[in-house]
Formats: sequence, C-alpha cells, structure tokens
Amino acid sequence: MTTDIASAIAEAGGRIDGLMAELLPRRTDDVLSEIVWYHMESGGKRVRPALCLITCEALGGTPDEAVHFALAIEILHNMFLVHDDIEDGDTVRRDRPTVWVKYGIPHAINSGDYLLTKAQEIVLLSDVDAERKLKLLDAFSRTCRTTIEGQALDIHFRADERFTIETYLHLVRKKTGCYLACGLVGGAIVAHAEDAVIQALWRLGDNMGPAFQIRDDVIDLTLGKGRGGEIGCDIREGKASILYAHALEHGGRDDVNTLRHILLKSRDETSPDDVQWVIDLYERCGALDYASQRADELVQEAYGVIEELPLASKDFFKQLARFMAERKS
Amino acid sequence: MTTDIASAIAEAGGRIDGLMAELLPRRTDDVLSEIVWYHMESGGKRVRPALCLITCEALGGTPDEAVHFALAIEILHNMFLVHDDIEDGDTVRRDRPTVWVKYGIPHAINSGDYLLTKAQEIVLLSDVDAERKLKLLDAFSRTCRTTIEGQALDIHFRADERFTIETYLHLVRKKTGCYLACGLVGGAIVAHAEDAVIQALWRLGDNMGPAFQIRDDVIDLTLGKGRGGEIGCDIREGKASILYAHALEHGGRDDVNTLRHILLKSRDETSPDDVQWVIDLYERCGALDYASQRADELVQEAYGVIEELPLASKDFFKQLARFMAERKS
Repeated sequence: MTTDIASAIAEAGGRIDGLMAELLPRRTDDVLSEIVWYHMESGGKRVRPALCLITCEALGGTPDEAVHFALAIEILHNMFLVHDDIEDGDTVRRDRPTVWVKYGIPHAINSGDYLLTKAQEIVLLSDVDAERKLKLLDAFSRTCRTTIEGQALDIHFRADERFTIETYLHLVRKKTGCYLACGLVGGAIVAHAEDAVIQALWRLGDNMGPAFQIRDDVIDLTLGKGRGGEIGCDIREGKASILYAHALEHGGRDDVNTLRHILLKSRDETSPDDVQWVIDLYERCGALDYASQRADELVQEAYGVIEELPLASKDFFKQLARFMAERKS
Repeated sequence: MTTDIASAIAEAGGRIDGLMAELLPRRTDDVLSEIVWYHMESGGKRVRPALCLITCEALGGTPDEAVHFALAIEILHNMFLVHDDIEDGDTVRRDRPTVWVKYGIPHAINSGDYLLTKAQEIVLLSDVDAERKLKLLDAFSRTCRTTIEGQALDIHFRADERFTIETYLHLVRKKTGCYLACGLVGGAIVAHAEDAVIQALWRLGDNMGPAFQIRDDVIDLTLGKGRGGEIGCDIREGKASILYAHALEHGGRDDVNTLRHILLKSRDETSPDDVQWVIDLYERCGALDYASQRADELVQEAYGVIEELPLASKDFFKQLARFMAERKS
C-alpha cells in the first residue's frame, strides 16, 4: 500500500510544476528569476505539495482548489533551503553549488525573501471562498513563523552543553513538524474538514516531524544527505541533533568535552578523523540505537493520533505516516 | 500646515508602539525576541504607520481598523533594514552595531525572516471584514514582493557601467515607491476608498518614492544618514545612486573609469580621499544640482496625480507629498 502512496505522490507532484512555471515565470532578462530558477530546477521531489493534494482528495475535497496552497508549500520549502544553506555554511545542495556560493550572500538572502513573499501571494490566489482562503493564509503564516522560531533555536543551541532531548523535540516540532503538517492541514481546509480533524493533523506533525528529523540525523551519519555524498555534515556544522543530545546525557565527562570541542570547530577545521570519532562515540554510548527506537515510538504515537481522527480514511493516514517516516531526506 | 502633518504623524506613531508590545511580545528567555527587540528598540520614527492611520482618517475611515496594517508596515520596514544591513555590509545603524554584527549573519537572516512572516500574520489580525482583509493582504504581499524585486536590481547594478537614470527610476519605484505608498493604500482600503483612489495612491508612490530616494542619495553626501555621522556610505557600498547614473552619462571617460574603480573597491579599501574625489566629481558634472531639480519635478508630478484624485482632501495629500519629500531619512 505504501507503494500506492509513493506513486500518488509522484503523480500529484507533477501537477505542481505546471502551475509553478505559470506563477513564477522564468525570464532571461531578470536576475531574480535566474537565481530562483537556478535553485528550483535543481530538483526536489515535490513531496510536500503532493501530500497536500492527496490529503485533500482523501478527505473528499477538490484537489484543484488546493493546488495554489500546495505550490506555496513547495516554494516555502525551497526558501528555507536557500536561507538555511547560508546560515549553515553549506556549499553544496543537490550536487550543485548552493545559491549563496554561486550568486553571493546578498542575492541569496534577497531571493529567499522573494520566495517567502511569493509563496504568500500564491496562497492569496487560491480558488476558494474568502472564509477558506483566510484559514489557508492563517495556517500558512503560522507555519512560516513557527518554522523560523525553530530555526532560531537550532542556531542558538549549536554545540550548546545545555542541550537536552526535550529541547531537541521542542526545536524539531517547531522547525520540521509544523511545516510537514501544513500541507495536510491545507488540503483538509480546502476539503471543508472540521476543526477537530485540522487540530489532529497539526498534532500529527508534532509526532511525524521529530520522527522524520531523527531519521534524517541518522542518515547524515550513514548514507549522507546527497550533498556530494559527504557523511557527517551535521557534525561539521555543530548541529544540535538527537545524537548529540543523547551523548551529552549519557557520555562521560571527557567524551562530552571532546565532542563539544569538535562540534565547535569550523567546518574547515573539522577533520575526517574528528567526524569518525564522533560517529564512534554515538555508537559506543548507544545514541544511534536510541534514535532509531525513538523514531519508531513517535510513529506509533502518530498512529494513536490518527486512531482518534473522526474520519473514515484512517488507514490512508497511517500509510502516510509510515511513508513520511521512512522516506529519505 | 506641514507642521500639522508632522505632529499628526508623531501622535499616530505613538499608537503603534502599544500594539507592537502586545503582538511582538518581549521575552527574556527567547533568543529571537531578544534579537528582534535589540533592533526595534533602537528607534525609528514610525512615519510609515502614521501615514497609514492619518490617510485612513482623512478619507473618512476608522483608524482603529487600520492599526494592524500600520504596524505590519513598520515591521516590514524594519525587516528590510535588518536584511539590507547584511547585504550592504553596514556595521552601524542608528548609532549602534547592526544586528548581524551583534548576533552573527545566521541569526540576522533568520530574525529578518521572522519579522517578514510576523508582519503578514499581523495583517491577518486586522479588525475588518473578510473582503477588506483580503485586499489588505493583497496590497501587503504585492508591496513585499515589489520591494524585494527592487532590491535585486539594486544589488545587481552596483557599480555597473550600464546603469542609467531610467534604470534608477525603475529600481527606486520598486524598492522605495511601492512601500512608501503601501501605508496610504492600506489606510484607504480600510476607509472603503474606491479603486480609482487606491490606484492613484500607488501612482503617488511612483513619484514620491524616487523623490524621497533622490533626496536620500544627496543627504548621504552632505549630512550623512545617521550611521555614526559617516558621509558617503553609498560610495563605500558602490551603490547605484542617481548621482552615479548622472555621472556615467555626463562624465568624461577617465572620470567614469576612476569613479567605477572607486565604487568597486570594498568598503574597507575606500579611503576618505576616494569619497571626496567622487563628491567633487558629482559637483563638477552637475549631478548634485540635477538630482535636486529632478526631485522637485517628481513632487510636482505627484501634485498632478493628487489633482486627479476623486476626493475632497486633495490639500491634505499635497501637504503629505511635500512632507514625504522633505523629511530626512
């Protein structure tokens, strides 16, 4: 059944690209258009907008009415990537130089700003009545703001010794959970879903966001995140991952001191031996096992939220939860 | 009469601060709140929100209904300052270190993003019916997007030899005109003004934006912009000002080569002698006189737009135009 969801997502994702070409026109005489398309054409699986459209359909709505919101979510996602790459100092994304490397920091900041405001403008174009449009705008603005609050915590807690697993979960609910749920919520609003369903979908994000992010933290140490195949980007960035939180709580004092010392090094100063030392520590103190187990628990909790949903399509949402937790970044 | 407008602006500006404290709460345990308030408390004259409220009142509306929009404009203005300071490499704003200098570039980018999305959220809270709310959101999104398009041109054309006065006017209408008009437009929407009035107010921005920006370009060379009293910031930044455009068109080849050479230098490489050389060139080739004359013409054109306004309060808008053109940055 998960295969069905995967193909439904692939199909729905394709519907976004046409609208994107129309509403974000590609112009050769315009520096902003060039920069935006340099980033957008580099790929991305359009998973978030697809989740919006198939949720709308599963709840009996008309996906055509949700297509603007779906596109706005995809643009927002890309906006965050452009700004995060500057903030994290990432130089490669989807195997190409990141926007700030290619066009400089000023243009990269400004084109992220453009994508954010363009996304808001596209939500306003939604082909729905004023009441649902205002609800969509409300969900969208809340998502933007919450995600950015999460990013502030993420920057703040890099290599911070006071970081805990609770703080991690709070951070990730804000930074990842809200905007994972937002597409589902938008699809539900368009489908005239009742408030209880919408609230449950936000709660689903509170479980699925961390489940997804924890797997992403682990993938960074095992497969790499598709940034030139590099392993351990999060370690080079000093990122406050669940593995770091667990090691702080369970490592000995010497291990913790060495760990923080490595995470505080700049990206260029961090050697391959440093990265390997951290991975060994995470294995040694059980952080990797703990992370996998915690992700599984969060998916189970998500199933619990879905069980309480006042709707017929519970099976669909369970498959969706499984799909979201298992997919690669 | 201009004095009356100045005091009306001072009074209206004060009404914004209370709402800001409520909707942008100041928290001691939150890094984002600390950064935002570090910037917001540094001052600013609240001119843009005041223009919104007094326009609403002049057109027979209820200013209380416009107060959220007015606050959103002020927050947007500050968001642009935070990001522009990074993009321009400005280290001092209102005689204090800029946000990126104090908190680092990652937090500065992210807190600008926060202000942008918070401003959108505050427009959504406006105490008006759904129809006017959607119009307000539309005007606000259009303004954000247009201003950012202007900023892209500004970055793109720094020290560019193809820069012309026409390009300058196009750039400044986008970067400065639209969001100068936006407060007036928001006040008019709240006051149920007819579409012809709203369109005229946008056109007013097309004249007043350049008039205001040209005076700002001149002020930078005479009085400085309040960034530690420094003269010639625009020259250090290589900014594409009207003076630069005029000098490109009217200077000799050697002068133009030296001018571009100086503008292309980094801020630190630009000496006080370089700055003085450029000011002398601008005087010698008549750029300073031309700029003042062009600003006067734009104000006269604005009067023409106002004459066509289908409303009784034309005198009010003429005073407003004069006030906007004369005030210091």
